[in-house]
Amino acid sequence: MSKLNIKSGLVEMAHGSGGRVSAVLIEELFVRHLGNELLSQGNDASAFEVPAGRMVISTDAHVVSPLFFPGGDIGSLSVHGTINDVVTSGAKPLCLSASFILEEGFPLAELEKIVLSMAEASSLAGVPIATGDTKVVERGKGDGVFISTTGIGLVPAGIHISGDRAEPGDAIISSGYIGDHGIAILSSRQGLEFGTQIQSDSAALHELVADMVEAVPDIHCLRDPTRGGLATTLNELCKQSSVGMQIREVDIAVRAEVRGACELLGLDPLYIANEGKMVCICSQKDADKLISVMQGHPLGRDATIIGEVVVDERQLVVMQTSFGGQRVVDWLAGEQLPRIC
Amino acid sequence: MSKLNIKSGLVEMAHGSGGRVSAVLIEELFVRHLGNELLSQGNDASAFEVPAGRMVISTDAHVVSPLFFPGGDIGSLSVHGTINDVVTSGAKPLCLSASFILEEGFPLAELEKIVLSMAEASSLAGVPIATGDTKVVERGKGDGVFISTTGIGLVPAGIHISGDRAEPGDAIISSGYIGDHGIAILSSRQGLEFGTQIQSDSAALHELVADMVEAVPDIHCLRDPTRGGLATTLNELCKQSSVGMQIREVDIAVRAEVRGACELLGLDPLYIANEGKMVCICSQKDADKLISVMQGHPLGRDATIIGEVVVDERQLVVMQTSFGGQRVVDWLAGEQLPRIC
Repeated sequence: MSKLNIKSGLVEMAHGSGGRVSAVLIEELFVRHLGNELLSQGNDASAFEVPAGRMVISTDAHVVSPLFFPGGDIGSLSVHGTINDVVTSGAKPLCLSASFILEEGFPLAELEKIVLSMAEASSLAGVPIATGDTKVVERGKGDGVFISTTGIGLVPAGIHISGDRAEPGDAIISSGYIGDHGIAILSSRQGLEFGTQIQSDSAALHELVADMVEAVPDIHCLRDPTRGGLATTLNELCKQSSVGMQIREVDIAVRAEVRGACELLGLDPLYIANEGKMVCICSQKDADKLISVMQGHPLGRDATIIGEVVVDERQLVVMQTSFGGQRVVDWLAGEQLPRIC
Repeated sequence: MSKLNIKSGLVEMAHGSGGRVSAVLIEELFVRHLGNELLSQGNDASAFEVPAGRMVISTDAHVVSPLFFPGGDIGSLSVHGTINDVVTSGAKPLCLSASFILEEGFPLAELEKIVLSMAEASSLAGVPIATGDTKVVERGKGDGVFISTTGIGLVPAGIHISGDRAEPGDAIISSGYIGDHGIAILSSRQGLEFGTQIQSDSAALHELVADMVEAVPDIHCLRDPTRGGLATTLNELCKQSSVGMQIREVDIAVRAEVRGACELLGLDPLYIANEGKMVCICSQKDADKLISVMQGHPLGRDATIIGEVVVDERQLVVMQTSFGGQRVVDWLAGEQLPRIC
């Protein structure tokens, strides 16, 4: 079979044909870099053994623009994003699927960089990409690369984490600094510089969550505050659990650079997307233990208790501001930052 | 919350924001129509119990153009396509995930038609859509709707179907008429009329395959001949199993209208995509039993034995033509019909 010209070649319609040219792309780019026992089975469906238990499934389409940004790219993001969704159930991730929609004319060299980044993220996380698919659309009908990833995982026995389990009195924990991902994307998109370069926090949180679940099996809720930011995630949980929340601005970690960028651009860090953070809700009695376990992990070292769940029929998130006032933190309205993930 | 204007509304960037407007779209369009116990959990990851056993995962990106075609649309196709990939392992499908990439300005009324069609296909097949995601890209950065579906399934004990199990002497079975899907798409894309309208064969084959596996647990290979057609599927199996194949043109079912359209357009039906067909390879001793079981199911009623697996180091598919000659049937080269699925 002919070799792929990765150095200077471009994605062609034939790469999506399902024929010989597709086979070369799959062999020399995807299987070569993502290669693992599951993918190498070469069947339309990859097979593996599972024990009996509670399984979860989660999916994400990734359309981030630009494709490469400080701290990551669409490849690593598509691995981290779906692993993090899977672990919001407390599950141990088993494997991922990846489906690519490529635009005709996209440089194969950039595609390889993206696939290598996926491979590294998947290998570091120990979560193989078990199966994939590639389609190509005509120039002007896509935007370089879109990647949809789906993940499955197994929930340890006795764990029942769900968005409807927040109870009045519970502690609300955030795992660290918010807003880094969104501001990193925005600054690279617009060529803005805010003093030091802000890096995306894109990271796989499965080990952090495994530590948390082991220490406190009765975690009530976990959710990663991506699109819509911390504010929207808290509002979702209020709605699902029919509760309100009281949070304290002073306890929510925001880097000075992110705060500065937000002020300059008229944005609110509470609504900016994160890709390596977790919001956790648990009983007050478990909160200190959880904070200490989280702070013991590199991805949770800035974890803080940011507020409490309260009784509120209106299901509002109310923030005590740094100036001592009170402010309702609503759902994200409209679109603050398109194509952030 | 504000209501969605499905009748005359368009997809807006805010529908992909992850905020309030996204929540309305998800609630009033996706959850409303696709609603099932899994999706209604409302968490980032949907949970369900699985027994111990062998599981499979498969994924497909769907970029078919046009979105609506005779015999189906991107919604039903995205359900059928992934179910069929899952069942090529002999598995019983458990559930699907669906991720949508929408183009700004796409009519919500058309999106609803697509979601209704997915809902119907999923409900008819008894395979729920357990989780989903929706992203929106700017006008001119997508093409209406792309849908990536991932499916998981459980393989019954004792079944081991894989593309590397074809053995010299095995029978090659095709489940019915080939080329219908590709020609249906092509004719609707180009506004061509070939006498009677050709309908896509898009269908979920899980029940047919369940019957086949029950009758003959030792099926060697199953594969659905989609992109690249029957010719490419047979070549893939030859490569994976290190064998050759001898097939007989006279035994391969092609509708007169499909043959006519192919002649007119200079296409070969062997390379045209199918979305409701299955290629099966099994021992000669099992072939008659399998054909009879297949013919007893509406989706396999035109099943025939189309040839045999042979020893061939060159791994060629050779066809005895209707005129008595021999012809090598190679992999699809280049791109015959872009965006067929």
